[in-house]
Amino acid sequence: MTTHVSRRTFLTASALAAGAAVLPRASLAAAPLSGTQGPGVYRYKLGAFELTALYDGTWFLPIDGKFVTNASGAAVNEALAAAFLPPDIMPISITALLVNTGSKLVLIDTGTAGQITDTAGFLNGNLAAAGIRPADIDIVLISHFHPDHINGLRTKDGDKVFPNAQIVVPEPEWTFWMDDGNQSRATGSVFGYFRNAWRIFADIAREVHRFTPGAEIVPGIVSLPAYGHTPGHTAFSVQSGNESMLVMGDTVRNPELFARHPDWQPIFDIDGALAVTTRRRMLDRAAADRMLVGAYHFPFPACGHMIKTATGYELVPSMWRPL
Amino acid sequence: MTTHVSRRTFLTASALAAGAAVLPRASLAAAPLSGTQGPGVYRYKLGAFELTALYDGTWFLPIDGKFVTNASGAAVNEALAAAFLPPDIMPISITALLVNTGSKLVLIDTGTAGQITDTAGFLNGNLAAAGIRPADIDIVLISHFHPDHINGLRTKDGDKVFPNAQIVVPEPEWTFWMDDGNQSRATGSVFGYFRNAWRIFADIAREVHRFTPGAEIVPGIVSLPAYGHTPGHTAFSVQSGNESMLVMGDTVRNPELFARHPDWQPIFDIDGALAVTTRRRMLDRAAADRMLVGAYHFPFPACGHMIKTATGYELVPSMWRPL
Repeated sequence: MTTHVSRRTFLTASALAAGAAVLPRASLAAAPLSGTQGPGVYRYKLGAFELTALYDGTWFLPIDGKFVTNASGAAVNEALAAAFLPPDIMPISITALLVNTGSKLVLIDTGTAGQITDTAGFLNGNLAAAGIRPADIDIVLISHFHPDHINGLRTKDGDKVFPNAQIVVPEPEWTFWMDDGNQSRATGSVFGYFRNAWRIFADIAREVHRFTPGAEIVPGIVSLPAYGHTPGHTAFSVQSGNESMLVMGDTVRNPELFARHPDWQPIFDIDGALAVTTRRRMLDRAAADRMLVGAYHFPFPACGHMIKTATGYELVPSMWRPL
Repeated sequence: MTTHVSRRTFLTASALAAGAAVLPRASLAAAPLSGTQGPGVYRYKLGAFELTALYDGTWFLPIDGKFVTNASGAAVNEALAAAFLPPDIMPISITALLVNTGSKLVLIDTGTAGQITDTAGFLNGNLAAAGIRPADIDIVLISHFHPDHINGLRTKDGDKVFPNAQIVVPEPEWTFWMDDGNQSRATGSVFGYFRNAWRIFADIAREVHRFTPGAEIVPGIVSLPAYGHTPGHTAFSVQSGNESMLVMGDTVRNPELFARHPDWQPIFDIDGALAVTTRRRMLDRAAADRMLVGAYHFPFPACGHMIKTATGYELVPSMWRPL
């Protein structure tokens, strides 16, 4: 047994090595740098449900002082610096949420499918890392029709990504984005969003299920109107047993900007004033009830709790833990 | 082309589905719950170095009001509640850091090898998920001799886990823990730590390289004395190009307790007063210099920045991003 070795003996024997900073032993071959991120897959339980956060990537958007319509570029850069982020670039993290209710596999929003930036489009790889095939998904539930939420429904070539899934969308989103008149009045990037929604949905229109926000989607998932970001932007309440979670979609976006400054209006909010009202209402509820929240653009794994402060709200990210 | 379909026609055709919350289509077979967490592997660059945070798990330690020697159980529970954590349980997250300098693969601390709790011991699985074999590790660098830092050197059966690695430890840790007299005066769990250090190191004593804290270990990794938690507890500075990181070991432990309340003394600090001095010095430096920091018991991926507040310090976790 090692405990019978004299301690004095081996202390003496090994003392020559003391203080040795230059290590004399022959080196192994240098391990190559990996060059790839680890899987972005994080699981947590909610009652009997199993939730999986699936990271799609981060869109590093150059903002040139113009991301917040009612705050100066300097104020935005100050908020970025407070979060130890570089100036003039908005890191738009993208994380979809998969809910396994025990009888249904529901994917809430779909990522970018690599159609927006080279630094996003990893959702399907992470789905594979999670041991789930796209064909396993029963329901794809869409919060709203911005490209980073719906593009994952199709490959760049237009093929369906989730061949067996029912696609379920908010009725007011459908009505707004699939309307010729609205499209004809749109300009710039918003015009592109109309074209993109058409590309994604036109030839599967008969298969798409539309719901009125407020409706239950499946047992345990209820939709909640959260209008403003887009006309039909929808949040979801997920509940199992006595545990519940508020899935906020794009109501808050980057917490270091829009939780801390809930009145700030990002350029992506179509009705900025209504979006502020919705944001404040939802953050107030989350903070007051100490609710578990998820949000598509929160840093991966995109879940946590909100605390009300003197000037806004703070995200307390969930602590990574074994399942 | 889909753009030639009449929008009016398909809006009408699909209108029947509007508001449908009960989905009529036949369901797929229910996907089984996974029951396992996703890989805990997070990579980031530091200059030319590639760093990989490797999650070992979380030890949920029942504390019965006795984890902080100079704060009441009620005050500790209040701090846990502020972090949305349940009372009376200390979640001790464990994340080792792998540094690929381009010529050496250096693992800083080794996890528990499943020898402390069922909810930790995942480091080697996560190393495999990162694409690295234990035999690839060139150097295992130890911060101090507490079991959750050194047990990963051996399997439960005593086999070496990293067969080709040089094991490099702080000289004052070796001197303290391998001393018969010190062991004979130890009681309770600390006596167990002495026995455990002997179990890990006795029969490889001649192979263990000891350094004096302050020494450079390999180019780009310099050891820093951080005494108090244990007599030879050591932190590390990692530097490549003009980027650097402070790897704090157990200087801070759970940020929601000991960053926010730097004067609190956890039961695991052998010299609580000295540990407080070290903790304040290191947090002051990290906050003042806006340094990237890593810490073994910070929530995975266990890296971020520290902000000084009126009463203590706050961790701003690094935002998960593509490599």
